[in-house]
Amino acid sequence: MRGAILARYRIETCLPLEQVAETLAGEQSSGTFLPVPGETEALKAQARAKVLRIDPLEVVDQPSLPGGRQPRGGAEFAKFHRAEITLEFPLANLGANLPTLVATVCGNLYELSDHTGCKLLDLDLPPAFGEKYPGPQFSVAGTRKLAGVHDRPILGTIVKPSVGFTPEQTAELVRELGEAGIDFIKDDELQANGPSCSLRERVAAVMRVINTLADRTGKKVMYAFNITDDLDAMLRHHDTVCAAGGTCVMVSLHSVGLPGLLELRRHSAIPIHGHRNGWGMYARHPFLGVEYTAWQKLWRLAGADHLHVNGLQNKFWESDDSVVRSIQACRTPMFRPDDTAMPVVSSGQWGGQAPETYRRTGTTDLMYVAGGGILAHPMGPAAGLRALQQAWQAAVEGIPLAEHATTHPELMATIHRFGGSR
Amino acid sequence: MRGAILARYRIETCLPLEQVAETLAGEQSSGTFLPVPGETEALKAQARAKVLRIDPLEVVDQPSLPGGRQPRGGAEFAKFHRAEITLEFPLANLGANLPTLVATVCGNLYELSDHTGCKLLDLDLPPAFGEKYPGPQFSVAGTRKLAGVHDRPILGTIVKPSVGFTPEQTAELVRELGEAGIDFIKDDELQANGPSCSLRERVAAVMRVINTLADRTGKKVMYAFNITDDLDAMLRHHDTVCAAGGTCVMVSLHSVGLPGLLELRRHSAIPIHGHRNGWGMYARHPFLGVEYTAWQKLWRLAGADHLHVNGLQNKFWESDDSVVRSIQACRTPMFRPDDTAMPVVSSGQWGGQAPETYRRTGTTDLMYVAGGGILAHPMGPAAGLRALQQAWQAAVEGIPLAEHATTHPELMATIHRFGGSR
Repeated sequence: MRGAILARYRIETCLPLEQVAETLAGEQSSGTFLPVPGETEALKAQARAKVLRIDPLEVVDQPSLPGGRQPRGGAEFAKFHRAEITLEFPLANLGANLPTLVATVCGNLYELSDHTGCKLLDLDLPPAFGEKYPGPQFSVAGTRKLAGVHDRPILGTIVKPSVGFTPEQTAELVRELGEAGIDFIKDDELQANGPSCSLRERVAAVMRVINTLADRTGKKVMYAFNITDDLDAMLRHHDTVCAAGGTCVMVSLHSVGLPGLLELRRHSAIPIHGHRNGWGMYARHPFLGVEYTAWQKLWRLAGADHLHVNGLQNKFWESDDSVVRSIQACRTPMFRPDDTAMPVVSSGQWGGQAPETYRRTGTTDLMYVAGGGILAHPMGPAAGLRALQQAWQAAVEGIPLAEHATTHPELMATIHRFGGSR
Repeated sequence: MRGAILARYRIETCLPLEQVAETLAGEQSSGTFLPVPGETEALKAQARAKVLRIDPLEVVDQPSLPGGRQPRGGAEFAKFHRAEITLEFPLANLGANLPTLVATVCGNLYELSDHTGCKLLDLDLPPAFGEKYPGPQFSVAGTRKLAGVHDRPILGTIVKPSVGFTPEQTAELVRELGEAGIDFIKDDELQANGPSCSLRERVAAVMRVINTLADRTGKKVMYAFNITDDLDAMLRHHDTVCAAGGTCVMVSLHSVGLPGLLELRRHSAIPIHGHRNGWGMYARHPFLGVEYTAWQKLWRLAGADHLHVNGLQNKFWESDDSVVRSIQACRTPMFRPDDTAMPVVSSGQWGGQAPETYRRTGTTDLMYVAGGGILAHPMGPAAGLRALQQAWQAAVEGIPLAEHATTHPELMATIHRFGGSR
């Protein structure tokens, strides 16, 4: 099997960059710390990863991570060199295999004391991965069709409080939001199949409301039921959602794993909403973990239709630049035009971020999810939703929000309520 | 459903510790950033996580992670307070559910800008988890029985080079090691089911050697075949291993995920060897991720029989203290005496670490895995293995290695070869 996997990393080390790049390449392919009889030149030529590029970055005085090897000449003289490096792994070592890809490109290399920082930035995968793995089943077009929303973002919310509501209380909130014309509602990642609000009862209560409303209005609210669970239960929950007429399921990606998501993808008849909770652990440190660009490729290949990207001016630690990069990453095809994921913009969104989001990404192919921004609107959730619609209309038409608000009282109220909070 | 889940964290923040602890508790239970109508006192009393303890630690001048909120009074006056905190989550929010537990105790909380560091240290789970999840099927006793090794560590090695060998070359190495009397051999995590060395052909070639040897000597080498793959393939690989008479399968835990491991556990007829590659990402930063103590509880509940713990004086970044804590964690029962995992000691091991390993852990219930330490022994792999046996005998009997070496030439050679390398 010919072909190669390229992996780009950001590293930091007090040793020579070339040496450390070679160590990383060796550790994650045919290299050994001590020479062994079987590591012949022929074997190395076939199986050893190669260092393709080294692009030096800045030099700093302090290591980013503990556990690095003692520099020669003593710690007080140490300089820590940063660089981006690209390694090339022979496809023949692993084949087109997602779980083994993970062990190869983000496995034991974080452990090496040769570096004081290592982060996987991006992956370039050969076509064999696109042939082997299904990718998203619905992506943007399929989701828009099911939600009945075109030419603007799919506007949604999260059931809040995250946990504590009964199925009936959840359904009551869905009724209020559905009557206000919402496109999309999702469970919180904390609300899965707990004894106080079982998936089965929640699906029954919520879908009764959604189906009744759809019969009346012709618009079916897309509700992402959190079916995160052990594998058999997750597939069963999916069937429960489908049998009740539901149009979306959600999973916490890190909780179910790539093989779990792939099983769901192969089984699923409706879009899969991928929640990235836990991702801060992968991403928050600039010299440890995995960047979103690499991360989202794995989950898309395994079948996620929607992927969380945080939002601009969010309530979390992440910068706007990083969020914009994530949105662009999800929208960039890998192997075919429709294997993109629909970016899910959320976290502290209330509509005020719509102009900047549109200016920087140039797209409305987004799910735009506001929690408090809708539910805590001073005129109630229905007005909160109208305010979001107004904000996006202004954003796309290039009208300043404040100007648009003069003729749109819900938007005016939302600006007064949330506009000063940051 | 009554009961609670306790989660202990190490945090760092420039805000008041009590406030941040409450924010974490709220974010991961019923709290919302903005008050919403449904968050009643009754709901909070039932669903909100509680702050049980706050134990302040040191105060530092620089934040551990970027993205923290701007401190009041400006960055130049900021102090960053560290603490250990314990949160109590109502079991009724999620039930005994491993995937949702992950989303709850190591989900979005890493994202919060209220802190500049957050690491999950330990979990205390209520009995409902022990009732729902199977735990290890073989653990120490079952593994010892299958390997036929008692009263000393199970001594093993890793096939090296990690990738590049054909099935026949792998089998040839297994023959050499098996004839030398080795107990255990494992695939490298990079060697799964690649086109150059498919699992099926490797199992056939290796088990032919192992079975022939067992017929002759009565001792069957335990070989951990790396069956990491998509779920259906993984279960099929397991059956291939069993059909050929194999006695162990290995998976890369982060590659298959908790639901993937659980499916394998429910299907499996032989011990599951859990490889932790990628774990450096969880562990290397003291204020980000998950400590081993918490981490290993999740994988044991889902069924791992063996868990990698690194080794003393290892080639990686980790301290001996951390490795010792990991060994103790694996050996501490959770819900029943036999739900421990067998610690797999590896990384740069050559026997010289045996006395200190035994002194600090007081146990031989270990798998002790040496790669180069056996395969690169100057007198060959068989002598490398005898040297390991001699080192452990000396360790347990309290004889200094150098003294034992005077009457054991293989140990003497190993000390000369590897003793000065650190």
